[in-house]
Amino acid sequence: MRRHLLSLSLLLAPALTFSAPNNIIYMIGDGMGPAYLAAYRYMQDDPATKPVENTIFDELWQGMATTYPDDDTYVTDSAAGATALATGFKSYNGAISVNRQHIPIGTMMQLAKKLGKTNGIVASSQINHATPASFLAHNKSRRNYNEIADMYLDYRIDGKPVADVMLGGGTQYFVRDDRNLVSEFKQMGYQYADNWQQLSALTAAPALALLAETGLPAVLNSEQDSQLATLTTKALQLLTPAKKGFVLMVEGSQIDWCGHDNDIACAMAEMHDFAKAIAVAKAYVDKHPDTILVITADHETGGMSLGAAGEYLWLPKVVGNVKATGRSIAQQLKKAESDAAALALWAELTSITLTDDELKQLLATRQQDETTLRKLSNQLVAKYSYTGWTTGGHTAADVAVLAYGKEAKAFAGFQDNTQIAKKLMQYIQQTK
Amino acid sequence: MRRHLLSLSLLLAPALTFSAPNNIIYMIGDGMGPAYLAAYRYMQDDPATKPVENTIFDELWQGMATTYPDDDTYVTDSAAGATALATGFKSYNGAISVNRQHIPIGTMMQLAKKLGKTNGIVASSQINHATPASFLAHNKSRRNYNEIADMYLDYRIDGKPVADVMLGGGTQYFVRDDRNLVSEFKQMGYQYADNWQQLSALTAAPALALLAETGLPAVLNSEQDSQLATLTTKALQLLTPAKKGFVLMVEGSQIDWCGHDNDIACAMAEMHDFAKAIAVAKAYVDKHPDTILVITADHETGGMSLGAAGEYLWLPKVVGNVKATGRSIAQQLKKAESDAAALALWAELTSITLTDDELKQLLATRQQDETTLRKLSNQLVAKYSYTGWTTGGHTAADVAVLAYGKEAKAFAGFQDNTQIAKKLMQYIQQTK
Repeated sequence: MRRHLLSLSLLLAPALTFSAPNNIIYMIGDGMGPAYLAAYRYMQDDPATKPVENTIFDELWQGMATTYPDDDTYVTDSAAGATALATGFKSYNGAISVNRQHIPIGTMMQLAKKLGKTNGIVASSQINHATPASFLAHNKSRRNYNEIADMYLDYRIDGKPVADVMLGGGTQYFVRDDRNLVSEFKQMGYQYADNWQQLSALTAAPALALLAETGLPAVLNSEQDSQLATLTTKALQLLTPAKKGFVLMVEGSQIDWCGHDNDIACAMAEMHDFAKAIAVAKAYVDKHPDTILVITADHETGGMSLGAAGEYLWLPKVVGNVKATGRSIAQQLKKAESDAAALALWAELTSITLTDDELKQLLATRQQDETTLRKLSNQLVAKYSYTGWTTGGHTAADVAVLAYGKEAKAFAGFQDNTQIAKKLMQYIQQTK
Repeated sequence: MRRHLLSLSLLLAPALTFSAPNNIIYMIGDGMGPAYLAAYRYMQDDPATKPVENTIFDELWQGMATTYPDDDTYVTDSAAGATALATGFKSYNGAISVNRQHIPIGTMMQLAKKLGKTNGIVASSQINHATPASFLAHNKSRRNYNEIADMYLDYRIDGKPVADVMLGGGTQYFVRDDRNLVSEFKQMGYQYADNWQQLSALTAAPALALLAETGLPAVLNSEQDSQLATLTTKALQLLTPAKKGFVLMVEGSQIDWCGHDNDIACAMAEMHDFAKAIAVAKAYVDKHPDTILVITADHETGGMSLGAAGEYLWLPKVVGNVKATGRSIAQQLKKAESDAAALALWAELTSITLTDDELKQLLATRQQDETTLRKLSNQLVAKYSYTGWTTGGHTAADVAVLAYGKEAKAFAGFQDNTQIAKKLMQYIQQTK
């Protein structure tokens, strides 16, 4: 095979032919394989009209990227995926921006901080989950949540934490018996919010908002409208005064969680929330043209397909009628006071008319644990919508690369996922 | 929703800003969803080296296309898919270039013929199968194979059949008790071949080669090396003298058939055959720069995923060790003289070491019908390679659009599948 001459070619690169954008908005749909984009398009389609309208994803589509990690599995996890997207180098599954020898790999946000830029992260997971963690910290294992949270404060560049704005969930890891990182951040001058009202009152970076113990509520169950768009708007407001521009990473974290559950209604609600956040970012680029918006995914989750079991059919309307996640449906059915109440709840929450056998199965499963009931609920929604799933884990599908604004065309065509970070880091290098 | 103003916008199009290529090579991987491209890349990877090399597909990647048909299923069949790719208009599943009222829709090859161009089709299926049929004929149903074959001869433009070169399978439909189309084509001056030796002796268009009763042998079982590349080379040789340029459609027909069988080894062998044909076409473009090469798929087949059942792993080596299609394995195991001989055959043909329970299941299934045994064989290969499948039919995944040569960038980004044909037909309109 050809030798990997990338590092050398970067060193030998001729005079730069691009005009580096000063601001970077980098959005990652965790688990958002290409079929999720098609599914979302057909969910948004008005069936009364003939052509299907393009979604915001379709409008910004530039290229595709590989996702394989630095081992022999070909199937990445979110940590290795985010390490590639944050540093330009692949690593093993579980790695938070360290290589196979556990040596830290510099991230684009660390580089940006060194060069005087301002950094922000937004996530619908806890903010120390694998994807945001790979931009800010280093650890041999994504599971070391407390160590990673500590590093958000303790890892300094020119005396300062790497991120100036951090919005998402995670009080469980930041306010602990052994250490209160929130207090420490406050002492360093970070504004802090732990609810949505306080979030809107944040006025300037540095700022931290932790709006849930771990991840934010699933969008489909949440009373908060447009969670990710609200956080993205706030982050952009806080980052806009940055003197040398900013790097903002926004993760639609829970698309992946829905995929792991094989819960198509949950996944589509998270996609809609992510799409609204993208609309906020796109509008920002329109007003601030010295900005590049790049959107991609770390991998596909679930082996999801539109069409299943031999039927040439996918029914987005069935998905759209589901009013809660499978987890929530299972919880609610378990709590129902009677079988009749449970069946009424099922009808209300899903609008799916089951066969007599399926009704019996649902009631029998209600006597079992919540996980088993959740799986059955998600299987029934999949069956009636003709959605296919092959795994509760990830797959090695390539993922979409979308871009908008200055240098968007640089992300066109087929690329390795490390190339995305390498290009963005070239722009950061041009910070003046 | 926005009204569909496409036809109007074509009429109102400003002065053309492109330089129309004189020759079009249009290659369709039937059923070749995006995961097939990733799978083929990892099949070709040298595991001894770190980065995975790009395949020819990756190198030519420009954009993505929708596949949904003109009904409310969102999941197309190959007839509706090919109708969109051949005419620029969507229709219902089963339609061969007719609309929902069964009125014929003009195809790009009919347009090309009208304007003096020379047309060729190459397929590894029978040449009157849905995809090539949609370029040459009209029928309310793809299943009317004899009517479609008749139309290849009877439908005339300026007194001539639409296609000047037709290479593939299908004697069953062209030499029938009620009509011998081969004799009629010969009388019209078509050179004819019905085996690979005769194929190489074809010297000029018009020419017809029917190398099998229906489809060509599956690549994985075939003794003929590089089937589709050989046919593509011959077609290009016959088309090159065309005075006003040519339109050649090459279909990798059986990628889809393997997908329907959920047979990953079969699919990867067909992908390799298709890749070699693409290499022939790409080299042709290098020598004949007034040519555009466009490659896409009509849809995805099987809901195939790399990784399954919760494992973060795909094992191309397992796939690569399989020496025959599931159909052939089932046939051979059925014919084996003893259980011991059957198990030895299994080991020889797949290199997969089964558990005791699986061995028992294999031997028990050997007593059942061939289809059941084929399904078990393919399931075992899928299990040991961690390949997922959700359906024996198609899915609504978007598909890759690859292009090379003159105007290749016109196929970049996200597009409806009808746009591909519309662009190519704009080029054909510019024939001088």
